[in-house]
Amino acid sequence: MTGWENVRYLSGFTGSNGALFIGRDGNARLATDGRYLVQAAAESPDLDVIESRRPAPGLVASCRDAGQSAIGIEAAHVTLAQVRGLHTAADDGVTLVETDGVVEALRAVKDAEEIAALRRACEITDAAFSDVVLKLSPGVTERQVADRLYSAMRAAGAEAAAFDPIVGFGPHSAIPHHQPTDRELGRGDLVKTDFGARYDGYHADLTRTVVLGPAAHWQRELHAQVAGIQQDCRAAATPGALPSQLDTQASDAITAAGYRPAHGLGHGVGLQIHEDPFLTPSSTAGELAPGMVITIEPGIYLEGRGGVRIEDTGVVTAAGFDPLTTVTRDLLEL
Amino acid sequence: MTGWENVRYLSGFTGSNGALFIGRDGNARLATDGRYLVQAAAESPDLDVIESRRPAPGLVASCRDAGQSAIGIEAAHVTLAQVRGLHTAADDGVTLVETDGVVEALRAVKDAEEIAALRRACEITDAAFSDVVLKLSPGVTERQVADRLYSAMRAAGAEAAAFDPIVGFGPHSAIPHHQPTDRELGRGDLVKTDFGARYDGYHADLTRTVVLGPAAHWQRELHAQVAGIQQDCRAAATPGALPSQLDTQASDAITAAGYRPAHGLGHGVGLQIHEDPFLTPSSTAGELAPGMVITIEPGIYLEGRGGVRIEDTGVVTAAGFDPLTTVTRDLLEL
Repeated sequence: MTGWENVRYLSGFTGSNGALFIGRDGNARLATDGRYLVQAAAESPDLDVIESRRPAPGLVASCRDAGQSAIGIEAAHVTLAQVRGLHTAADDGVTLVETDGVVEALRAVKDAEEIAALRRACEITDAAFSDVVLKLSPGVTERQVADRLYSAMRAAGAEAAAFDPIVGFGPHSAIPHHQPTDRELGRGDLVKTDFGARYDGYHADLTRTVVLGPAAHWQRELHAQVAGIQQDCRAAATPGALPSQLDTQASDAITAAGYRPAHGLGHGVGLQIHEDPFLTPSSTAGELAPGMVITIEPGIYLEGRGGVRIEDTGVVTAAGFDPLTTVTRDLLEL
Repeated sequence: MTGWENVRYLSGFTGSNGALFIGRDGNARLATDGRYLVQAAAESPDLDVIESRRPAPGLVASCRDAGQSAIGIEAAHVTLAQVRGLHTAADDGVTLVETDGVVEALRAVKDAEEIAALRRACEITDAAFSDVVLKLSPGVTERQVADRLYSAMRAAGAEAAAFDPIVGFGPHSAIPHHQPTDRELGRGDLVKTDFGARYDGYHADLTRTVVLGPAAHWQRELHAQVAGIQQDCRAAATPGALPSQLDTQASDAITAAGYRPAHGLGHGVGLQIHEDPFLTPSSTAGELAPGMVITIEPGIYLEGRGGVRIEDTGVVTAAGFDPLTTVTRDLLEL
């Protein structure tokens, strides 16, 4: 396999250039280039480590020489250009078998160590929200708020931002994935922040929408509608629920309120910020199971006026959805 | 095509989910999903824009229906999983032809507008170096320096960091791609910083190595050797030079000085931080041509003691290599 998150998940190796083979007999070998040999030996002490300038073809050749008859290759991570090199390395001595989402399915259910890292990432994110958003004042720009969120997360121990923070004031809050600009915050503006920390490779994802000054009636109403839908969806995200049906529940509720659904309800979170299971209309993901970590993030957007999204990252447990992001979901009036 | 930098390069569309077809007759159509329709119409006003939840298969189906007989697909950007969807969409009505590096070759030579963006990215990077590195004092940590570089670039107008800054003190400077830690700066430490700004989609890449306090003899000698090799390679990076031979020139000089080459001499820079042409031993890139923007970044690393790398981003012109990063290459003693 060559998807780096999958290699890391199964081997512990965090370098950016590696390929991993695991045999049915449990024997495993990891290929990487010379820059990462010391690191690979330290991070994956139980594996045979092979040096190769081009790890994936190098690994295939090594498996061929070891008498392996077939090797699975990850269809979602191997390009048409790369597969040519794999076939050359296989040299008719070993059969390449395309696989789909095998490791992604394993990764969807988190173990205790992973949940601990996700919990820490979410704690850092909650703390940055409180540090930065609760202290906003008129005149600050979207870019400045994004920078403050980044700095607050780093200062609290984040290894990186999970993604570039989304910060939208006023009408910009109606753009689901708005990139921060030099727009200044004005009284009466909705403030939508969507950001998260990465900790030990694991991501957090949090969206809150607040207002500077007293909320207008339409803002209060919009926020209450989204908050209600988000609460209902959290309550429904129990083991056995189907991700596509949860998405339908949210979009039906948004439609019933008189608005148009703009995006899916959520997604899995882990070594990637977006991973299985996806909570979308076309999701083919199976039932939610204990240990899955997902976001619940409905939003309603009024073009030219403003939008509200409320998002939590949380873990599915036997007792229901347990939020890892816990900062208040109330409509704060700053 | 589906490589997003390639789509952006040819169409102007900057969304993250799009596919572009350009016909021999010059007709072009861009497919993207509903989130990006308004943006696509604004950024690519001359193109037919097609809405599709899955832009690449949607585009293939659209071309098939329009009577197209063959479509090029980018082998380096289409995965095995994606190509199945393209074949389904083609439905035997249109032939899919794998292409290799067609747009990447066009992108290797920059026009005036691109060079202006690269120049601005490099100016921001130079300024951040002066702001941060020249003011270092004992006790600061690698992570803190990385954060200061990021903040200084953002404050100077960068839209993002070109990549996570590399900051290595003392023995850490001997690790080519060292990730910043909580190590504190001590007197006599070499300080290696490798970072850059992104501006309007274009990247800068700058490495300098300085020392805190008076340099030891071995540090001065090491720095002088790398500086000499870097200067010679800049002088040789003229139109007509072969990237693989430039790399050989550098590695031969490093070997002649008694050290082991640890990485390639450089790479193209543009919409990606690493792009064609690559200055490596195995590079198949053709001769350098005016308008190419590349890095020249030789380094020598003494494990456990320290390393020196000096890197500039610059443009190949008829008159030779013109550095866009211009901050002093002398061994500064802070």
